[in-house]
Amino acid sequence: MSEETDVRHASGVDEAGKDRNIRRLRRIEGQVRGLQKMVEEDRYCTDIMTQIASVHEALRGVSRELMRNHLRHCTADAVRSGEARAEEIYEELLDLIYSRTR
Amino acid sequence: MSEETDVRHASGVDEAGKDRNIRRLRRIEGQVRGLQKMVEEDRYCTDIMTQIASVHEALRGVSRELMRNHLRHCTADAVRSGEARAEEIYEELLDLIYSRTR
Amino acid sequence: MSEETDVRHASGVDEAGKDRNIRRLRRIEGQVRGLQKMVEEDRYCTDIMTQIASVHEALRGVSRELMRNHLRHCTADAVRSGEARAEEIYEELLDLIYSRTR
Amino acid sequence: MSEETDVRHASGVDEAGKDRNIRRLRRIEGQVRGLQKMVEEDRYCTDIMTQIASVHEALRGVSRELMRNHLRHCTADAVRSGEARAEEIYEELLDLIYSRTR
Repeated sequence: MSEETDVRHASGVDEAGKDRNIRRLRRIEGQVRGLQKMVEEDRYCTDIMTQIASVHEALRGVSRELMRNHLRHCTADAVRSGEARAEEIYEELLDLIYSRTR
Repeated sequence: MSEETDVRHASGVDEAGKDRNIRRLRRIEGQVRGLQKMVEEDRYCTDIMTQIASVHEALRGVSRELMRNHLRHCTADAVRSGEARAEEIYEELLDLIYSRTR
Repeated sequence: MSEETDVRHASGVDEAGKDRNIRRLRRIEGQVRGLQKMVEEDRYCTDIMTQIASVHEALRGVSRELMRNHLRHCTADAVRSGEARAEEIYEELLDLIYSRTR
Repeated sequence: MSEETDVRHASGVDEAGKDRNIRRLRRIEGQVRGLQKMVEEDRYCTDIMTQIASVHEALRGVSRELMRNHLRHCTADAVRSGEARAEEIYEELLDLIYSRTR
């Protein structure tokens, strides 16, 4: 999706955090390919599940970085934009934080 | 790692479940590449986090399939092998189930 | 702990949310007593675990209400207090959100 | 519920684990009463949420003990009862392990 067609951008992006996240996601892609190999080779189930746990943890690292950016830029902007916009972003945040699929 | 050098194999593997998991992991690899693109394009933070939630969920699908196989083959074999081996596999299972990084 | 000795108060509290939380916590107290009875009576393990899952879910309801209050009052105040105080509260929030014991 | 009316009992119960769980649940009941007091006194939101995290963790201790008992007795019995009964208990276990409300 190009910037032109994307209706909502981040209010601002920390470039260092963005670089860290791209590096993390490349490592995660490698881990997922490693998992395919482990499954193909009939590796021991709990070894594969331990490796999956490590991918979950790495994804949480990406998510935490995004959330920091979200609080610093989007949430802070919303707070300054007045109560209606702030309430909207709080409910969005609560849905995200208490979602059971994180 | 080749089968020759891998000390512990699964006691048995359900071939249909294995195929499903390889297909799932290929889809997950595509989702992770999609995440890299979203981060590069400065997409809205919560949209990326929602996409990450969907990868977590897909990984849990892989893990659930592995756990079914583990119960059907490895755990069942251990139960039949006597108490000492069974206790070992129960503790391994408990560590896996109650790990906070799933 | 009296208000006098408590160093940090909430910046503000939504009274309706507070009432909901007290009612929720009384119900949770009753559920925990029910769990004691189930354990004493040697009830089927998975029935007890299902009941424990329901207590986890009820606690998340309390937590979500507190988080809404925290965003509306404490976080919003911090954002208005300037960058240093805001950064402090963001890191505190991130630790809370990504803690593995929720 | 009396033993007479309860259709499914545990296949066996480890008495030491049962005692530990009753003690744990009494402590959890006290923690939940402490939470009510914290909410009534308008204590700082994140302090209450940290205390809630500690209740979640304590409940997981109870659940882990129950799961150990479940594996040692119910699951092991089911494995010995033949494939149909075993499959039933595996699916029940998978639902419990991968439930999003633990």
